[in-house]
Amino acid sequence: MPAKNLDEIMSFCKRRGFIFQSGEIYGGLQGVYDYGPLGVELKNNLKAAWWRANIYERDDMVGLDSAILSHQMVFKYSGHEDTFSDNMVDCYDCKKRWRVDHLKDGQCEACGSKNLTEPRPFNMMFKTRIGPVEDNASFAYLRPETAQGIFVNFRNIVDSTFQKLPFGVAQIGKAFRNEITPRNFIFRVREFEQMEIEFFVKPGEDEQWHDAWVETRVAWWQDQGLSKENLKLFVQPEAELAHYAKKTVDILYNFPHGLEELEGIANRTDFDLGSHSKEQGALNIKAKVNPNEHSITKLQILDPKTNENCVPYVIEPSAGVDRGILAILSEAYTEEVLGDGKERIVLKLKPHLAPVKVAVIPLAKNNPDIVAKTKVIRKRIQALGIGRVSYEDTGNIGKSYRRHDEIGTPLCITIDFETIGKDGDPALFNTVTIRERDSMTQKRVHLDDIETTVRGYF
Amino acid sequence: MPAKNLDEIMSFCKRRGFIFQSGEIYGGLQGVYDYGPLGVELKNNLKAAWWRANIYERDDMVGLDSAILSHQMVFKYSGHEDTFSDNMVDCYDCKKRWRVDHLKDGQCEACGSKNLTEPRPFNMMFKTRIGPVEDNASFAYLRPETAQGIFVNFRNIVDSTFQKLPFGVAQIGKAFRNEITPRNFIFRVREFEQMEIEFFVKPGEDEQWHDAWVETRVAWWQDQGLSKENLKLFVQPEAELAHYAKKTVDILYNFPHGLEELEGIANRTDFDLGSHSKEQGALNIKAKVNPNEHSITKLQILDPKTNENCVPYVIEPSAGVDRGILAILSEAYTEEVLGDGKERIVLKLKPHLAPVKVAVIPLAKNNPDIVAKTKVIRKRIQALGIGRVSYEDTGNIGKSYRRHDEIGTPLCITIDFETIGKDGDPALFNTVTIRERDSMTQKRVHLDDIETTVRGYF
Repeated sequence: MPAKNLDEIMSFCKRRGFIFQSGEIYGGLQGVYDYGPLGVELKNNLKAAWWRANIYERDDMVGLDSAILSHQMVFKYSGHEDTFSDNMVDCYDCKKRWRVDHLKDGQCEACGSKNLTEPRPFNMMFKTRIGPVEDNASFAYLRPETAQGIFVNFRNIVDSTFQKLPFGVAQIGKAFRNEITPRNFIFRVREFEQMEIEFFVKPGEDEQWHDAWVETRVAWWQDQGLSKENLKLFVQPEAELAHYAKKTVDILYNFPHGLEELEGIANRTDFDLGSHSKEQGALNIKAKVNPNEHSITKLQILDPKTNENCVPYVIEPSAGVDRGILAILSEAYTEEVLGDGKERIVLKLKPHLAPVKVAVIPLAKNNPDIVAKTKVIRKRIQALGIGRVSYEDTGNIGKSYRRHDEIGTPLCITIDFETIGKDGDPALFNTVTIRERDSMTQKRVHLDDIETTVRGYF
Repeated sequence: MPAKNLDEIMSFCKRRGFIFQSGEIYGGLQGVYDYGPLGVELKNNLKAAWWRANIYERDDMVGLDSAILSHQMVFKYSGHEDTFSDNMVDCYDCKKRWRVDHLKDGQCEACGSKNLTEPRPFNMMFKTRIGPVEDNASFAYLRPETAQGIFVNFRNIVDSTFQKLPFGVAQIGKAFRNEITPRNFIFRVREFEQMEIEFFVKPGEDEQWHDAWVETRVAWWQDQGLSKENLKLFVQPEAELAHYAKKTVDILYNFPHGLEELEGIANRTDFDLGSHSKEQGALNIKAKVNPNEHSITKLQILDPKTNENCVPYVIEPSAGVDRGILAILSEAYTEEVLGDGKERIVLKLKPHLAPVKVAVIPLAKNNPDIVAKTKVIRKRIQALGIGRVSYEDTGNIGKSYRRHDEIGTPLCITIDFETIGKDGDPALFNTVTIRERDSMTQKRVHLDDIETTVRGYF
């Protein structure tokens, strides 16, 4: 069965080196997490799969890696300064600050008081002072989304790489939101990672591209191992749409804590490029934008068919890396009762996501011939370039298998006395045991064939 | 010849989509840069090469990805709160703040005044308020180095992955320093990326491991294309050593702006693990550490030979990603005079670092048969999994070759009328031209052999 609750996943993540509370030895920093030795591999594999699918395997996409520290004008004209906020009240009794939408019957969560200030907006962007002078002018925002870095670089990208509509820009990177109440493990956090695409299209072709991207993104999440029945589409009601959006479809996942957003796919119209442009009046922008008094550039592109400039519409598939990790771990985490009545935990990750691809195990870690042979085989498998290959000698063979089941290692290769010709059937000389994680089947493979067998699996 | 100066590299980087000034359309954010479509590929390739060499190809290393937002106690006990600062003066006349070590004859840079305050330390760490309450207690630092994230997770890593000495933890990630005077393009910036290793060893084995790491790291940089004559070792004089260091060796590179640090390899002793431990008195720490009143953990490990706990020494090879990119671009950027008197710019990157691995070019972009064949071949080369393969139809064939020389694409494959059997020698049906970047040699290869040829090259 899949994981019953988040506590189980959290405890598993800490025990097996996937995810730790950040600053734990000092009591922890709320809403901030560190990825451990296995977590970083899983996360890198997920990001690489996204990059491969969205850049390498397409003809119409390029990548970007813009900075986290952001010019304050970027988030002024994006609208975040004015609208990216929660309404808060201060309590006169407990002296704490609370989100209005978390109050029950107008009462403050902890102390029960109704002795509260009027609601005031609290902006969720982190700021930091930049440069040596302590005046209000010299601060930068920590970006609350990676998207704006794509919009403000639109001209640079078009000019340097000769893009023509339709085309997209993909970016993976950290974003920061000063969440009042971070919760649900890595689901709602203050520092997180996004995988965002801004796909630029001719106005009028936006709706068909929006539909196409919804389909593409759902299929991709299924390729990462999320089952169809745990994924649901949610079309945001018009009244709840963000100010920039013409339509937004959320991909929801059935997380242990409930059905919640994994990715949002928005039709942002020409709001963003229009907002960051100078001389907006001459650009035929359809969205309602604030006058821009600071931009030095018109963010438009030549339509080679009409030979006229236009401000493209943009479709934005915006996914959370950490939410993806949480969904994938929840889906893959399985407690199984085996035939002999024993139990095992097995992490049924897709092979391309597994942190360790192959574990190579010496049956006797004190036998120098077996150890030497194991190291040679490890190097051979490593040379295939499939990812991380572990030399595993931390326990007996049964424990090693269980440990690698639990961290999702697809294949274990065991080198024993028969491999080195010291015991058993002489026909098994130069053969090893290859064990598969999910089926637990084992087969004996000749050393000449191990590369082919392993490569065939991945 | 290599690039003459930084301006040439900067202009090249912007023109070809490697690196842009961040927030450029709003006048730019000083000391902060965005990596464009080609820059992000180059950077990802460099980081992947480092990860492969330091984690996948070794038995004694694991990875980590800790957060940027950091608990304030982490940088209190690391020593950064007290010592990570520049001395600054305020000028009573121009009202600006200046670094003491930038004053000439005690005069303030811009206005020439000597009417200055006493020097005061200015801490280079960025801070940000966290949570909804505006008191001094609730702030976090943006980490000024990734290293501390490894130290404070030491017990979590050991407990979850069963490490034994000697072993190392590797991490790649962003770090932030409020440099007063960012300069030299991406060399000294406020937001940058690090590739750091903390290699933990038994006290007494630290010096030999330090020597070994210096050698390993120099060899790795050479594998990335930096020539031996542009790399120099610099042993920091004892008087200039950081408070935590027993010995530090810098790897210097001959940048266009001078011989400067590319990577530092420090013997940090047991200072860091000692500093972040509780009950320090019982730990036999050799470094001079401040008493820690907040840590809840002893950062030690069991030595299985002596069966005693010890606080390991740590060797830290700490490299700058952006500095690496700058060194690699400077080394690779070449202006060549060709036999016919024409000139070309060619970026002689190692193939594994090239942003685009192969460009596939239709000789006639309006011929549907050639275009269709080109797309099929692009897909076939893409399927090799070597990285990004481009469909290139932005100019005539000569321009396409020049453009790909300039961005460092190792191979171009051209599909022409002979490929589709519509012209020329019938023996050339189903053959393509493969052109190599550095030698500019071209050879005709049958379609059945293109995968083998391309794979053989990479």
